[in-house]
Amino acid sequence: MKIKYNLLHKDGNARYGTLETNYGIYETPMFMPVGTQATVKTLDPRDIKEIGSAVILSNTYHLWLRPGEDIVNKAGGLHKFMNYDGPILTDCGGFQVFSLIKNKKKDITEEGVIFKSHLNGERLLLTPEKSIQIQNKLDSDIAMSFDECIPYPASYDYAKESTERTIRWAKRGKDVFNNERQSLFGIVQGGEYEDLRYWCAKELVKMDFDGYSIGGTSVGEDKDTMYKMVEYAIKYLPQDKPRYLMGVGEPTDLFEGVSRGVDMFDCVLPTRLARHGHAFTLDGKINLKNYKYRADFSPVDSECDCYCCKNFTKAYIRHLIIANETLGQKLLSIHNLRFLIRIMENIRVSIKNDKFMEYKDEFINRYKSEK
Amino acid sequence: MKIKYNLLHKDGNARYGTLETNYGIYETPMFMPVGTQATVKTLDPRDIKEIGSAVILSNTYHLWLRPGEDIVNKAGGLHKFMNYDGPILTDCGGFQVFSLIKNKKKDITEEGVIFKSHLNGERLLLTPEKSIQIQNKLDSDIAMSFDECIPYPASYDYAKESTERTIRWAKRGKDVFNNERQSLFGIVQGGEYEDLRYWCAKELVKMDFDGYSIGGTSVGEDKDTMYKMVEYAIKYLPQDKPRYLMGVGEPTDLFEGVSRGVDMFDCVLPTRLARHGHAFTLDGKINLKNYKYRADFSPVDSECDCYCCKNFTKAYIRHLIIANETLGQKLLSIHNLRFLIRIMENIRVSIKNDKFMEYKDEFINRYKSEK
Repeated sequence: MKIKYNLLHKDGNARYGTLETNYGIYETPMFMPVGTQATVKTLDPRDIKEIGSAVILSNTYHLWLRPGEDIVNKAGGLHKFMNYDGPILTDCGGFQVFSLIKNKKKDITEEGVIFKSHLNGERLLLTPEKSIQIQNKLDSDIAMSFDECIPYPASYDYAKESTERTIRWAKRGKDVFNNERQSLFGIVQGGEYEDLRYWCAKELVKMDFDGYSIGGTSVGEDKDTMYKMVEYAIKYLPQDKPRYLMGVGEPTDLFEGVSRGVDMFDCVLPTRLARHGHAFTLDGKINLKNYKYRADFSPVDSECDCYCCKNFTKAYIRHLIIANETLGQKLLSIHNLRFLIRIMENIRVSIKNDKFMEYKDEFINRYKSEK
Repeated sequence: MKIKYNLLHKDGNARYGTLETNYGIYETPMFMPVGTQATVKTLDPRDIKEIGSAVILSNTYHLWLRPGEDIVNKAGGLHKFMNYDGPILTDCGGFQVFSLIKNKKKDITEEGVIFKSHLNGERLLLTPEKSIQIQNKLDSDIAMSFDECIPYPASYDYAKESTERTIRWAKRGKDVFNNERQSLFGIVQGGEYEDLRYWCAKELVKMDFDGYSIGGTSVGEDKDTMYKMVEYAIKYLPQDKPRYLMGVGEPTDLFEGVSRGVDMFDCVLPTRLARHGHAFTLDGKINLKNYKYRADFSPVDSECDCYCCKNFTKAYIRHLIIANETLGQKLLSIHNLRFLIRIMENIRVSIKNDKFMEYKDEFINRYKSEK
């Protein structure tokens, strides 16, 4: 089935709703853990469920290159391949093509993007049709249109040319899209330019996608610019479709996104931070490698309900991280993901109670207070 | 409490029994997973329980260097530090001192061993007293006497000198041992020489340890020599105490050890193989990186009941291993450990039914048949 978004309550621009999927109904706004290579790094599917995940994300670019979409398809699709019975969203591959290989030669043409594989240097062509065909085969629940992720800063002329192409690419992808149980999102680009974001949103909405992503953020712009990009894009999106802000996962950014009407977020930040020994707490991020934690037998976050915080101490996790034991990375990944998922749970309650702005201020004031 | 071994049935020299510990009663023979740095690599404590582990092992040398026995002691001991509520055995550090640093300068004196830390090159002295004091602080359930692991091959004269020293070291360690709830094993050395093994066993038994280890195997000798070393050592050990063959974990070696009267085994092999993408099956070891598994959607071992085999395919695990995702290493670690633990479960049943030798032949014939 196609996903269905139900807007149930608004508090300012913040939206509380539900998303009906092939794998159940989930509340929004939500944070989606990233499972780049068909695995949320260091976690098994039981861990993913236990932290309260709804949708998880996987990367088309990575799965295309390895193991290949045909292998995943033969396995019965991504859910069966990785043994995950919850909704999965795949991105379009555009972001990876434009960022992973930014230092190497790539050619953008009307046809698509020619670039070199980060694995073996092979020359590859990714087109809007190919991206959709790969995602159709991966059989995720939500697919993304192929877009160009505009660098920041970009001139108005470049952004305009690129946005026009992204709209043409969205149309081409939609035309070949062929998977009954999969939904397709359009991606609003336009850089930092309000008229381009507006125009892109309007054109995509005409094509009637199942949801809309806001792309081209977190590519180097300052926070105020990012928030403006979100505002520009979202103003022209319909209320009855979900809005997904791609690649955003700093705790404060989740609040800023929700306050502007975003329903879905994803980011590698919580798992990447974990692998480097960093943990979110309500007072800000902490670095478990710090010497001061060597005999600290309190939990990473005494206010957290996750498996890590309920069972292990800072001293033990510090030991694991320093000894390069993957259990340390796993426990912090569980905590960091649960931390963001709990924030979203609290945000949903606050919206329903018309207290979102109070909760936002309270969170941000405390989170920022840490030095 | 001190551990208590109960011999319940013999089938030839194979022994079925129980081991009463601070954390419950477990059946023997048993295989003990290795948690070198206070973590069984890639597994969390729930995984360890789920695969049916009884005693697990941790390494005194590693914990001494990092995080240090005082940190572990302040945490409330190793069980609390790593949040594991099952019995834990610690080795004495001797094997690591003699093997990890075999290419660097070390000095063996009557006092102990002077060597350089593998972490930072610091000069350290490990003595029998120090080893026991560290283990007392770690508060494992079973501690080991400090011994010299004799290299193979070794001259009779060297083996004799070393074995005499190991006996003196055992006595010195026993004299300073001070932990009411911890048991202490003596380690039978003697190299490949029957009279030295006999003499060492006899001297240690006089000191009345809570159990006896057979040391100095798996250090380069051929299989027949190893089995002889076990026979020489075990002949003179009492029936009412457990016998532990250190560092042995090849499936066929478990059978050979049990057939000679061994009750406890440990080895890093199952988890190390897993991290390199190898898995045990009843037909022998397989390498999941092999191209032929790329679209093989059957379990690693269709006769296994572990979380890995019940939920994931060879194709998925191959993908994870090749993509260097730790979930692949974890799933294979679970399987390989469960594989050895299940062998021991089957061995125990076969001993109770006086069918151990039939089971041994059946297993070894099939396991060896694989090329």
